[in-house]
Amino acid sequence: MTFLMVSYPERVAVFREAFARSLPDVEFVSDPEQVAPEKVRYLMAWTFPEDLAERYPNLEAVFCVGAGIDHVLNAKLAPSVKLIRMIEPGLTTLMRDYVVMSVLALHRRLPAYLQLQREHKWVNLDFAWADQRRVSVLGLGELGQASLNALKPFGFQLAGWSRSPRTLEGIRCHHGPEGLKEMLAATDILICLLPLTPETRGILNADLFAQLPAGASLIQVGRGEHLDHDALLQALDSGHLEAAFVDVTVPEPLPAEHPMWSHPKVILTPHVAAHTRADSAAAATIANLRRMMAGETPVGLVDLERGY
Amino acid sequence: MTFLMVSYPERVAVFREAFARSLPDVEFVSDPEQVAPEKVRYLMAWTFPEDLAERYPNLEAVFCVGAGIDHVLNAKLAPSVKLIRMIEPGLTTLMRDYVVMSVLALHRRLPAYLQLQREHKWVNLDFAWADQRRVSVLGLGELGQASLNALKPFGFQLAGWSRSPRTLEGIRCHHGPEGLKEMLAATDILICLLPLTPETRGILNADLFAQLPAGASLIQVGRGEHLDHDALLQALDSGHLEAAFVDVTVPEPLPAEHPMWSHPKVILTPHVAAHTRADSAAAATIANLRRMMAGETPVGLVDLERGY
Repeated sequence: MTFLMVSYPERVAVFREAFARSLPDVEFVSDPEQVAPEKVRYLMAWTFPEDLAERYPNLEAVFCVGAGIDHVLNAKLAPSVKLIRMIEPGLTTLMRDYVVMSVLALHRRLPAYLQLQREHKWVNLDFAWADQRRVSVLGLGELGQASLNALKPFGFQLAGWSRSPRTLEGIRCHHGPEGLKEMLAATDILICLLPLTPETRGILNADLFAQLPAGASLIQVGRGEHLDHDALLQALDSGHLEAAFVDVTVPEPLPAEHPMWSHPKVILTPHVAAHTRADSAAAATIANLRRMMAGETPVGLVDLERGY
Repeated sequence: MTFLMVSYPERVAVFREAFARSLPDVEFVSDPEQVAPEKVRYLMAWTFPEDLAERYPNLEAVFCVGAGIDHVLNAKLAPSVKLIRMIEPGLTTLMRDYVVMSVLALHRRLPAYLQLQREHKWVNLDFAWADQRRVSVLGLGELGQASLNALKPFGFQLAGWSRSPRTLEGIRCHHGPEGLKEMLAATDILICLLPLTPETRGILNADLFAQLPAGASLIQVGRGEHLDHDALLQALDSGHLEAAFVDVTVPEPLPAEHPMWSHPKVILTPHVAAHTRADSAAAATIANLRRMMAGETPVGLVDLERGY
């Protein structure tokens, strides 16, 4: 029973120690060259070879080291192989903190104040009180819910949208295509935390931006492919949107000549909103292996039909 | 029994309506020309005439429309006149939100990412987890406590310093000169929310910055006179401090040629961290007048000896 983990040495070291302590019966390997492929029952990595299924014929589960798994769906998995995305508190709190930071920054018009600072202008801008500000999240999974919960103490009007109906305390929940329209029309700050699927690819486009009220802002922390970059820049240039935080792009790194870099209304960060924390991820992975050994469903199991 | 309020027309209108509704026996006046000075029992304003005591001989209380009252202390008040600073939830939540925004932004190294964005560089910077980050507040009054409480859910190591001893749940409390040294040596993000007194004037100086660990950051939301502007810029230039949010300066507006405007490690906002919210401030003021009429101590009563 071998667990093969392909990742950074520092992260591997933390997992290796946790496995030795908590799951001594599982052989932990980090070098694919040092293990007979047929012995690999569990594989954890971020990118995967095209011939995954053939190379590891006895795979039982593939663990993605991050929250997104859309890139793994391209790898051909045998139907019996479980695909598990990372759900662990380190990553969740990082995303939550980035979202709270950027919501407060957009709420308090930080991008506009940064522009005034560049112009050496001391000017008080109009502002809205938090209870007048409508903050909405696309995607009500682990990260969307954690972000909304962390925003509650600030008194915003909170809403969320998901494909299928949800009920969340203190959140106005919408679903389906009609619910999306309804929510967008009543959103001042929109946060994208959707999974990437054929239905959500390019969802942040000119049509969606046009449905937001004038002066709305965007926080793009989903996947780069959700966003039509040109449509965003046009909506900002026209003044329809006020500002945006963008943490994910296509491609990554964003080429130095891309106009988003120097757009005065965009705060661009290099895919740092959230990443996996080695110690808490190791604990979450070990807990999941124990669940699977006991015949239970692991947390973060991907529905391959649904795509997340 | 006349309450004279000198402020912006929109704010005055909200107070006028609240007084008419809740305290119909108190005459509410907003134009100093339209009232006999000897009738004025209560005066609310932000700036006050030098001859305040002589002009209004029957003053019982002076209400400051903002949280800071240091500039009023210069106005000669008769010893019997109460000086009351503004404590109201609108102002408190604004400050709390600005502090949370700037703590998260410094924690996630936003100023450094803004610099990388200016250089069109996609680079992941080192970072610390929230539980490894020590966030300390100078000043444990209304605003300091509200800010610390709002920071609790993010998992930072929190500390606070005040002149006299305090006990606050989940906060490492320090006091006095020795306590200050102790706290500074263990602070990654320092927030100034002190009142301005002879003891705190210029407290954010080269000596204080030198006591912070290398790489620490500053959030200056106290009063402009707390900060030695040159010392801050030197500490940033030397690399000892990483970044700063500065919301208050001397003078205000900060002159366009001041080097702080274009310093890449400073995020400068034009004294917008917090201001009084008309509706909640009117309610707080009316509650205070009722307390005083009942012979009770008003909330926010300034100790003229102590200076806050």
